[in-house]
Amino acid sequence: MRRAIELAARGLGSTSPNPVVGCVVLDAAGRTVGEGWHQRAGGPHAEVHALTAAGPAARGGTAVVTLEPCAHTGRTGPCAQALIAAGVARVVYAVADPNPQAAGGAAVLAAAGVEVAAGPLAAEAAEVNAAWLTAVRHGRPHVHWKYAATLDGRIAAADGTSRWITSPESRADVHRLRAESDAVLVGSGTARADDPHLAVRGVPGARQPLRVVLDTEASAVKPGARVLDGAAATLVAVADDAPAAHLLGHAEVVRLPRATHGPGLDLTALLAALHRRGIRSLLLEGGPTLAGAFAAAGLVDRVTGYLAPALLGAGPQALTGAGITTIADALRLRVTGVDRIGPDLRVSAVPVNAPVPKES
Amino acid sequence: MRRAIELAARGLGSTSPNPVVGCVVLDAAGRTVGEGWHQRAGGPHAEVHALTAAGPAARGGTAVVTLEPCAHTGRTGPCAQALIAAGVARVVYAVADPNPQAAGGAAVLAAAGVEVAAGPLAAEAAEVNAAWLTAVRHGRPHVHWKYAATLDGRIAAADGTSRWITSPESRADVHRLRAESDAVLVGSGTARADDPHLAVRGVPGARQPLRVVLDTEASAVKPGARVLDGAAATLVAVADDAPAAHLLGHAEVVRLPRATHGPGLDLTALLAALHRRGIRSLLLEGGPTLAGAFAAAGLVDRVTGYLAPALLGAGPQALTGAGITTIADALRLRVTGVDRIGPDLRVSAVPVNAPVPKES
Repeated sequence: MRRAIELAARGLGSTSPNPVVGCVVLDAAGRTVGEGWHQRAGGPHAEVHALTAAGPAARGGTAVVTLEPCAHTGRTGPCAQALIAAGVARVVYAVADPNPQAAGGAAVLAAAGVEVAAGPLAAEAAEVNAAWLTAVRHGRPHVHWKYAATLDGRIAAADGTSRWITSPESRADVHRLRAESDAVLVGSGTARADDPHLAVRGVPGARQPLRVVLDTEASAVKPGARVLDGAAATLVAVADDAPAAHLLGHAEVVRLPRATHGPGLDLTALLAALHRRGIRSLLLEGGPTLAGAFAAAGLVDRVTGYLAPALLGAGPQALTGAGITTIADALRLRVTGVDRIGPDLRVSAVPVNAPVPKES
Repeated sequence: MRRAIELAARGLGSTSPNPVVGCVVLDAAGRTVGEGWHQRAGGPHAEVHALTAAGPAARGGTAVVTLEPCAHTGRTGPCAQALIAAGVARVVYAVADPNPQAAGGAAVLAAAGVEVAAGPLAAEAAEVNAAWLTAVRHGRPHVHWKYAATLDGRIAAADGTSRWITSPESRADVHRLRAESDAVLVGSGTARADDPHLAVRGVPGARQPLRVVLDTEASAVKPGARVLDGAAATLVAVADDAPAAHLLGHAEVVRLPRATHGPGLDLTALLAALHRRGIRSLLLEGGPTLAGAFAAAGLVDRVTGYLAPALLGAGPQALTGAGITTIADALRLRVTGVDRIGPDLRVSAVPVNAPVPKES
């Protein structure tokens, strides 16, 4: 299963709105005879790739797959049927399919006399599919907040300078995160201060994410902004009543209601609009105010902090306005990984009370 | 040498004002026949312990020692002479002794026909002796700043609550840091807000550090304060002109000049007073203002941050007033270690431009 999860991870960034899936087929003697992963939406599923590689050796063997094989016919046929046709004797999967359209594969397999086991490494398999699982369960994109700060939590010095707090290695790593995401979001503050480009650079074969700017008053993104170049598609979200004529022809414009509390747009409406557009994973690269609004709304699913070994003692913080006033209400996280990235630390974490994937 | 460094580390917290030293004696065939470390000031040096354990087997063998053997007679005889008397053929040491009173051991050994080699694992050996080396080279205690904060750099919530940001495991680890230090320092802000105890709890065999409060106006520490109990000695540093009569009989009071720039006391004078009192290592546990004053004065030699996987988005920062206004002037550090302490991260770092121990 660990190998199947590795294979699944290869699809990150290119399968949306589908899940990433990996599959290993063993023959009756337990030898690996086929491997596969879902490579892109519309293409063959992981099981089909692995069964094709295995050929007749799959008969009487075992298919190990990270997600319950699907039972529905979409752009491709149902995988449960393909496994049965190949004569597989046993199917082991990690995570049950929560998608009502596709679920039921385990039952189809069992009815055909295939031995079915669920659950091994379910947590790891769910983690690699976190974006898709969040999207299916909550009907909104998975939100991954990324920030870069000093050890004392500053994202810039007192005079506003921030180039560069983190190392070239960390900044390259952010491009990898972008490449794994369907969309990248910043707010008007970041758009105004940094004129960011937001496209992926330096990741071979990367699909460009949708660049999204939350520009409530339609005043931050102006013609000539780097985010309006042709490197990737760009969407600017503005308030219903904002004058956005200057953006027409330069970017897709989405009009949304304002937030009922506080400034900015209704984030639930923003996420719904992105979900409708096929976005399943969103990398939040905005500044402290936008991150605070997402945190206050309980809409942060994952956090990656790049911590530079430096101290500033003054300057803006990584997070503001999250609506937390006392220690008991702190947004508690669980660290899922700590890595040295050049001289910096990369801390990965998820909210403690995030819904934990359930096994079937 | 790695083993000798491990042995040296056992002395941390109990050898001051002496260095920690570890020694391994190998016989002529290269087998370990004796180990020792300096256990407490006034007691035998590491080499003597190791030679005693080795007995006659040391003849023709090698002594591996973390610090250049001393050539002077203090409360104990010179180690260079003991090594010669034991018939050791070869001495390998990591770090040269910078102490003018004790240096010259290598020359004494060489003059007696002992083969001498210097330098292996010098950086690691210097790190375990960082406090003592700083004290010898700069004539002041080594300053180790410890803080505990959320991932976004907050040491308390907006309403001032901070119990507890970090886990019981991290708080226990702080007691270990205290036990390795000669003194623990807080400022008046922390004394007033937290009424801290500052003694070591839960570390078997620990020597209590001197508790020091920088209380410029002599207004924060009042009779009944926890820091004035009998658990450890306490020193209160106050301004020359502060009315400190209420402290007499409760703590040692040191009068110091005020800082020439900004509030508080002259930190150089404070460190000099502590050094005169035999303090070689100081754990700075103060709040953001005191830490900022030390950082601004270039008086931070090591940083340990306990980072809780939590976000607050508001509340006081780990560091303020360090006098840094632009990114180019950031206090850059080098991460020397990252550890998981319960759910938290412990990040250890040293200033990049700190004097690097030189080999002789």
